[in-house]
Amino acid sequence: MNKATVDDKSTLDQSSINTLRFLAADAVQKAKSGHPGTPMGAAPLAYTLWDRFLKHNPHNPSWPDRDRFVLSPGHASTLLYGLLHLTGYDLPLEELKNFRQWGSKTPGHPEYGETPGVEVTTGPLGQGFAHAVGMAVAERWLADHYNRPGHEIIDHNTYALVSDGDLQEGVASEAASLAGTLHLGKLIFLYDDNDIQIEGSTDIAFSENVARRFDAYGWQALGPIDGNDLAAVEDAIRQAQAETERPSLIICTTVIGFGSPQQGTAKVHGEPLGEAGLRAAKEGLGLPLQPTFYVPDAVKVHMGQAVVRGQATEADWQERMTAYATAYPTEAAELALQLSGKLPVDWDAGLADLFPAGTPAMASRQSSGEVLNALVQRVHALTGGSADLAPSTKTHLAGYGDFGWDEYRGHNMHFGVREHAMGAIVNGMALHGGLIPYSATFLQFADYMRPPMRLAALMGIRAIYVFTHDSIGLGEDGPTHQPVEHLLSLRAIPNLTVIRPGDARETAEAWRSALLNTGGPTALIFSRQALPLLSSDDGVQARGLHQGAYILWQSSAAQPQVILIGSGSETQFALEAGKALAGAGVGVRVVSMPSWELFDRQPDAYRESVLPSTVRARVAVEAALELGWERYVGLDGAVIGMAGFGASAPASVLYEKFGITTEAVVAAARKLIEQK
Amino acid sequence: MNKATVDDKSTLDQSSINTLRFLAADAVQKAKSGHPGTPMGAAPLAYTLWDRFLKHNPHNPSWPDRDRFVLSPGHASTLLYGLLHLTGYDLPLEELKNFRQWGSKTPGHPEYGETPGVEVTTGPLGQGFAHAVGMAVAERWLADHYNRPGHEIIDHNTYALVSDGDLQEGVASEAASLAGTLHLGKLIFLYDDNDIQIEGSTDIAFSENVARRFDAYGWQALGPIDGNDLAAVEDAIRQAQAETERPSLIICTTVIGFGSPQQGTAKVHGEPLGEAGLRAAKEGLGLPLQPTFYVPDAVKVHMGQAVVRGQATEADWQERMTAYATAYPTEAAELALQLSGKLPVDWDAGLADLFPAGTPAMASRQSSGEVLNALVQRVHALTGGSADLAPSTKTHLAGYGDFGWDEYRGHNMHFGVREHAMGAIVNGMALHGGLIPYSATFLQFADYMRPPMRLAALMGIRAIYVFTHDSIGLGEDGPTHQPVEHLLSLRAIPNLTVIRPGDARETAEAWRSALLNTGGPTALIFSRQALPLLSSDDGVQARGLHQGAYILWQSSAAQPQVILIGSGSETQFALEAGKALAGAGVGVRVVSMPSWELFDRQPDAYRESVLPSTVRARVAVEAALELGWERYVGLDGAVIGMAGFGASAPASVLYEKFGITTEAVVAAARKLIEQK
Repeated sequence: MNKATVDDKSTLDQSSINTLRFLAADAVQKAKSGHPGTPMGAAPLAYTLWDRFLKHNPHNPSWPDRDRFVLSPGHASTLLYGLLHLTGYDLPLEELKNFRQWGSKTPGHPEYGETPGVEVTTGPLGQGFAHAVGMAVAERWLADHYNRPGHEIIDHNTYALVSDGDLQEGVASEAASLAGTLHLGKLIFLYDDNDIQIEGSTDIAFSENVARRFDAYGWQALGPIDGNDLAAVEDAIRQAQAETERPSLIICTTVIGFGSPQQGTAKVHGEPLGEAGLRAAKEGLGLPLQPTFYVPDAVKVHMGQAVVRGQATEADWQERMTAYATAYPTEAAELALQLSGKLPVDWDAGLADLFPAGTPAMASRQSSGEVLNALVQRVHALTGGSADLAPSTKTHLAGYGDFGWDEYRGHNMHFGVREHAMGAIVNGMALHGGLIPYSATFLQFADYMRPPMRLAALMGIRAIYVFTHDSIGLGEDGPTHQPVEHLLSLRAIPNLTVIRPGDARETAEAWRSALLNTGGPTALIFSRQALPLLSSDDGVQARGLHQGAYILWQSSAAQPQVILIGSGSETQFALEAGKALAGAGVGVRVVSMPSWELFDRQPDAYRESVLPSTVRARVAVEAALELGWERYVGLDGAVIGMAGFGASAPASVLYEKFGITTEAVVAAARKLIEQK
Repeated sequence: MNKATVDDKSTLDQSSINTLRFLAADAVQKAKSGHPGTPMGAAPLAYTLWDRFLKHNPHNPSWPDRDRFVLSPGHASTLLYGLLHLTGYDLPLEELKNFRQWGSKTPGHPEYGETPGVEVTTGPLGQGFAHAVGMAVAERWLADHYNRPGHEIIDHNTYALVSDGDLQEGVASEAASLAGTLHLGKLIFLYDDNDIQIEGSTDIAFSENVARRFDAYGWQALGPIDGNDLAAVEDAIRQAQAETERPSLIICTTVIGFGSPQQGTAKVHGEPLGEAGLRAAKEGLGLPLQPTFYVPDAVKVHMGQAVVRGQATEADWQERMTAYATAYPTEAAELALQLSGKLPVDWDAGLADLFPAGTPAMASRQSSGEVLNALVQRVHALTGGSADLAPSTKTHLAGYGDFGWDEYRGHNMHFGVREHAMGAIVNGMALHGGLIPYSATFLQFADYMRPPMRLAALMGIRAIYVFTHDSIGLGEDGPTHQPVEHLLSLRAIPNLTVIRPGDARETAEAWRSALLNTGGPTALIFSRQALPLLSSDDGVQARGLHQGAYILWQSSAAQPQVILIGSGSETQFALEAGKALAGAGVGVRVVSMPSWELFDRQPDAYRESVLPSTVRARVAVEAALELGWERYVGLDGAVIGMAGFGASAPASVLYEKFGITTEAVVAAARKLIEQK
């Protein structure tokens, strides 16, 4: 390039960056709410990445081999919206003007599924960082399974912009350490190091040496570089790309709210610049004051080139895919199926035969392990692991290898004792596509991973969270490890389907339900202790699980005097109590209720058929907090459950001491009947 | 010492260590459950610390200036129980023989309050690490406030044993980074680096350079040293003590299950050694096979010296305290009061006058800030801060300084964007004693800090968690930041009192309630948006908050046709709806219900007086998940609330769109009355 060209390019770069800055600042100003600081400070980083490197096709946001870009500080959403708009995604300028308004495609924080090109919902800090690691895991897994010599059909980077706040969150530390262990060399993060957080300078809470910390994790730490020096940013990204065995963190010194009169202070973080501030900023950077949401034609043309590049790049990939499909038709078909998210034909064949009549009592974690190992034979996309509890959660896929640097094709993930990152990484794998990922730990530790579970529910993605050791039934480990409130607090998360099966057959149905649930995450809740089969039929009855609750047994078809409702390991108590009461001449119905969410989604008529509104003598039994069951038993029913924390003793002792027994169910039912 | 003495000492050391190892292994064997690996591997570390360094008085476990010792891998509980027993705490050998049994003082994981000398409940990994940081914070705070030249009356170390699993958990990373920033030089951690976790070698998930990582945080990283080399351990602890400006992590290479045939493998982590394994281990280390729970006399005498040393050390401190009290009587009295946990006389004077009739509508976060700033004038122990949201949570104590390296006397903590560690550190401060600590963040981020909140509830300690921006009322930030399920999931934690006041006066009462609640933690839930005063009285009515729910207003003293129940920002809707219905001739009662837990603790008669069981037409209104309110409205009532996630728009639009309005309450009430 001669000097004039360089200058032109440089002018165009700056003009593009300033356009991004003020699309953000104008949107926040118009919404009277939002975060202008990070978009204005980090615009040069994001622009350089998107202009020089990002492999994507704005006209096909779901092209599988696109680079992934994650905006971890989701409060900088206007920066992402600006990039998406200018590079040709289906996000008209009108949407930016409607920032944060009801029904717009530009919510306060980026939301997956709401806006084309948004790869993951971000906002709660640290999550984007860890979700990106999951995306990079999925990429390596698919690459190792499907690439062939000369056919690098899965080969893309995962980029993220990350902030001080992200790096302070523990979930990012967990994910970073694991990413280093896994040598995820295609992970490239730009750290927007602006020295400011809401309470002031980052020094008050964050004096660590970030480069050294990431080096310790096994990352390549680059910089600090001047984030406003595009050549330096470009050079650093090239270095990051050249390093294939370590993830890279590029430390970029930036100025929050760059160009505004209050740049470099916490004041520009989270509120509009104000008319005067906005005017001063535009004047200072040489932008016209009007119109707002100004996009110079040259910028429009320049950044719009992303569409042309993207279409060409995808077309090239499609050509290579065609060649691959010719050379490796089986693999190509399997890959296409996996990427579609669909299940193979006959995916669940054989499940119904796993637990024939006469199957001995077994823990549902055990039957879950058997189901999982049967499923993976047909559902190749199943991949997951545990936060260092696989021998206890029974989630190991025998013969399917360990996912690691030496074998990215392994199906078994080893997350370490990092539940929070595990949840986020599993989400990231689901978001990437091509995998049906699961996590596993004790139910007690669900508390460590609530933020990513909530995001999965909000995003509506198929992530599966296995939780075992689901009650005081875990026994001697004591109250620190005995979940009490966890079932209710999971049931409280909208769009998370919680299923707590009562025997091996319901466990098989629970896994089927989880795989079929493409509209949201599923939490599968399993026992430590052995559970007998609940019926002696051929297993048909257990399919009632898909309705959430079903009539397991009743003394007669007549309207019952009392309804007993159980879930999981306590369904057997309800059943035993029902038979005892029936023996004494009471008209009784026993309902197995493995999932509140599935039941609540049924038509009124079905729900009424299971729980007739005229029958108010209802007893629910579950070795968990009683609170919440009032939804099904009302003010006139009874709940046999826990009112407080558990204790340390053998499980059988605990059930007796806490009064969660068949006898207690019988007694409660009798009392209700007598009161009538 | 001459050689014979050295040899004797060395023999005694080894004998003591082996006694600890086999008290643990025998207890696990007898209980048929537990974790022998870490106690056997880490016994030399713990022994060296307790024998050579730990400043404590086994006969007075609550001596304020004792060193704190935290066993972060709580599964190694038998190691701690052995130490407590042998050094003379009130923990008879019989209790070790009853390990993990109902009613014993030796639960599966150490529990604060259950066993003398246990400083904190541990088990969920990472928590002990972060709680210990909180203890060290409290120590420095008290030292800076109360020590005077020549009177170092608060001057102790906080030690912890930490494991691979602890270091993998994000909460430990958060706490470590903050501890480094705060230069907590009296924090000394022994890292039991045994290379093994449950799924195998730590290499599969944890290849980071721990020393380098902690160095990056601003810690002194020492080692790796051989954990079986007592002189090396002793020397490292001395180096750690000598470093006063940085926390220290001593990396000790150990062998899990040392002495057992399967030492150095995951197999010895979490199950009994078995008869054969136990025999082989005892033979290998030269212990008699019988009796089990063997304590050689020499070990008993030797380790029992801790009592003598401890009594002398405390006596010396008491003498110094007497001198201090003579020289600084005011300070001594104030310190004694703070350490007692009691509130000063007239501690709540003036609160009632803060919000006189005519007080304009204000957000409860705002009134909370005013209450907090009034309280701290009299309650000197109040200290806390926010996870980088203080300007929004309104929790800054004006004029009370920032807690930091240059001023440990500051009352304002800056936790950084680290909610999880914040919760644990606040707990640690409460456990240390001398402070009434609080945390603050948005309610949405309560999910990040559930594990420590649960531990606080289990321990029954006075920690106060402030959560603001408590509903869709936060508006434009959107569903990633709008809590929906969080109220219910907090209410689900046993012994956590959740209070969501409806106006400024209830806010003052909520803070009073939190400070008076010495038996457990309190979550205070505040609005972003302005709330009008609920009554025009002199504020007396708001004291009904202490009963959890009270009659705010009713159309007459007669039995009402319908009861309207509200909490927090929606109580005003219930009140407006009640007045509208009354205007139309309906007999109506309006109940303000800021706290389910406080209400549930009331006698039946009080609860019946507020919610008569015969009145089944009940409408609850709360801008949160509807689930759970069935506890109070039953199957015949109605709930006006959220069924799913929120959205991004101005708050007033959201309330309309989601149908949470006075009109909706009126309509629901009319429908219920008509159905009757």
